[in-house]
Amino acid sequence: MHYLDNAATTPLDPSVRGFLAEGYADLWGNPSSDSELGRNAKRALEVARDLLCGMLGARELVFCGGGTEATNLALRGSLARDSRRTILVGAADHPAVLETAADLEHEGHTTIRYPVGSQGRVRLDEFARLVEEHASSIGVVSILHGNNENGTLAPVESMISTVRRHAPDAHVHVDAVQSFAKIAVDLDRFGADSVTIAAHKIHGPKGIGALALGDVRRPRTQCTGGGQERGLRCGTEDVVSARAFALAAEHWISRQAEETGRVRALRDRAERDLFAAIDGIELLGDSETRLPHLLPLGIRGVRGSMVRERLETHGILVSTGSACASEHRETRGSHVHRAMGVVSALADGALRISFGRFNEEADVDALVQVLPRIVAELRETAA
Amino acid sequence: MHYLDNAATTPLDPSVRGFLAEGYADLWGNPSSDSELGRNAKRALEVARDLLCGMLGARELVFCGGGTEATNLALRGSLARDSRRTILVGAADHPAVLETAADLEHEGHTTIRYPVGSQGRVRLDEFARLVEEHASSIGVVSILHGNNENGTLAPVESMISTVRRHAPDAHVHVDAVQSFAKIAVDLDRFGADSVTIAAHKIHGPKGIGALALGDVRRPRTQCTGGGQERGLRCGTEDVVSARAFALAAEHWISRQAEETGRVRALRDRAERDLFAAIDGIELLGDSETRLPHLLPLGIRGVRGSMVRERLETHGILVSTGSACASEHRETRGSHVHRAMGVVSALADGALRISFGRFNEEADVDALVQVLPRIVAELRETAA
Repeated sequence: MHYLDNAATTPLDPSVRGFLAEGYADLWGNPSSDSELGRNAKRALEVARDLLCGMLGARELVFCGGGTEATNLALRGSLARDSRRTILVGAADHPAVLETAADLEHEGHTTIRYPVGSQGRVRLDEFARLVEEHASSIGVVSILHGNNENGTLAPVESMISTVRRHAPDAHVHVDAVQSFAKIAVDLDRFGADSVTIAAHKIHGPKGIGALALGDVRRPRTQCTGGGQERGLRCGTEDVVSARAFALAAEHWISRQAEETGRVRALRDRAERDLFAAIDGIELLGDSETRLPHLLPLGIRGVRGSMVRERLETHGILVSTGSACASEHRETRGSHVHRAMGVVSALADGALRISFGRFNEEADVDALVQVLPRIVAELRETAA
Repeated sequence: MHYLDNAATTPLDPSVRGFLAEGYADLWGNPSSDSELGRNAKRALEVARDLLCGMLGARELVFCGGGTEATNLALRGSLARDSRRTILVGAADHPAVLETAADLEHEGHTTIRYPVGSQGRVRLDEFARLVEEHASSIGVVSILHGNNENGTLAPVESMISTVRRHAPDAHVHVDAVQSFAKIAVDLDRFGADSVTIAAHKIHGPKGIGALALGDVRRPRTQCTGGGQERGLRCGTEDVVSARAFALAAEHWISRQAEETGRVRALRDRAERDLFAAIDGIELLGDSETRLPHLLPLGIRGVRGSMVRERLETHGILVSTGSACASEHRETRGSHVHRAMGVVSALADGALRISFGRFNEEADVDALVQVLPRIVAELRETAA
């Protein structure tokens, strides 16, 4: 199998898999228990926390059941502390942000969406205007560091300094689920209040994510009972998964230049070869500031879902867009493409190809050999 | 090691551990992905859900990050649907219930605690009186099926029929974290609206629990974005853990009489031998209707924490009470003991001994050999 859908989820790092198999042998104690078994689990949990805090330039970190829960904690938890009712989010943000913002409207909050341009770049002028206009009422701002569909990176530091200038008390959340480990994600340097990450996007296990926090503007807990995670996310801690998460992150970040370089090189070759072999193909994202593992394509004259299906018969797995937005894709199309104003001739033929640490040249070989042929066949059938 | 703290957490069932090691080989896809890999993961998730629903007499089941999150979903999510503001909980309930109820008071809700008697039994007359008195304002009732400290079982069916008579629209939540798998837990027979369970109490992995649901009075989601778990708990599903959870439950429930019988026999022998060997020892719970794996003891003239420490030096692990309430235990004592009116001479010498499927006669041998000696030594030192 040639798995090229690493933005949806990733295969487990073999050494993390080894750890998961063995970790329960000595880390299964309840970290709240008084015994050495419990303290041992507690120590491993704190090691995982410290490691991730270090990688993220964060002061604190709350382990959650995944990235979506972490994002919910950031948004819901910040507004629970605040009398300001406005939520400022990106029009092309992840559903975890957009649907949570929409849900919070039922509780009397107002959502304002800042726009992106045709390549998915945040329109900074408009962002600044919205921040200024709503400065006094903004409780939370959310920024998607690297977009999960188009791969475009947001100018996080510049956006946050705009927020700090006009709305200094707003909680600024950065969704770094796709960018973490692959490129630098530094809460302190960003000037952010919280950063969401998830293990299963970086070859770690599912069911574990985290919200990294700074010193101030911390959210209010959304899950009470037992006082774990400094009271911010209660329930018996999943130490083995937390430790496996830190391990997966370490494996990427400790050799980030090399690992990411290899992933980027695979992506770049795929891009170059596909653009050379296919007419009417466009990048549905920013060619300059982009996540290194994402190749968001729009191909004219074909349906992305049919291309995806045929690729799968050749053992090549890609997606047409975000798995998290899959529910609505067939009926309403991608909200990211709508936000970018992608014409339907391209949006209909959208493919999201995404690479991971365990891809090899052979995966690119297969893709660049098969995809042009599939596109040609489908165009012929349609003609 | 003689691990006799299974109420805090349990060692992993070896076959579940084998599954965890192998499960990621073919179940790592994103269940929301269109590919066969994704559909395969989705199917495994639904198999796990169906199995647990079947075991629980439930119509629906939402996988959560643990029992505490499931309880939060039940309580917070039901009140979010309801204009009624009163929460009726047991005075000896788990912190996940009590702290969530307390937290909800900040949002304008009122908590009423129904009392328990000296053996931890719910005082049914008082429960009925409170239900009647507050019938029109009760939004949620929570019942702890088997108490995690004293092991006493609540008469769930009778309590729920009282609620239905006076407050038919109230959401009734049953916390079955300690009882599930060990004894019959049947949402339908109970007449409950939701039941909380957790994998790590039954030799399953940490980081996974579930809220089982009936047909009506379903809670509102507390975690949005992506639509997973029928919109009730969003985020990429942890299929491997969900499947492992169902597996652990199956291993116990498919031979419940035998497995539970063995656990109960170990507990009963420990109880008999310890009561024969130690003076001034009492059961801090109900001797009749009690969880089969729990032995809650009060020993006069010793401090429980010192007994626990000395037992640990002999490789015997027990606890003085709930791990989830460990934060407050030293300063305020157990809220369960306070609710039962346990005299401090017994509460100070409290030990919670709890058994699991992987205990053996040798664990009881060690306990009944060592504990009486430790008690005698400590009493001598104190005298």
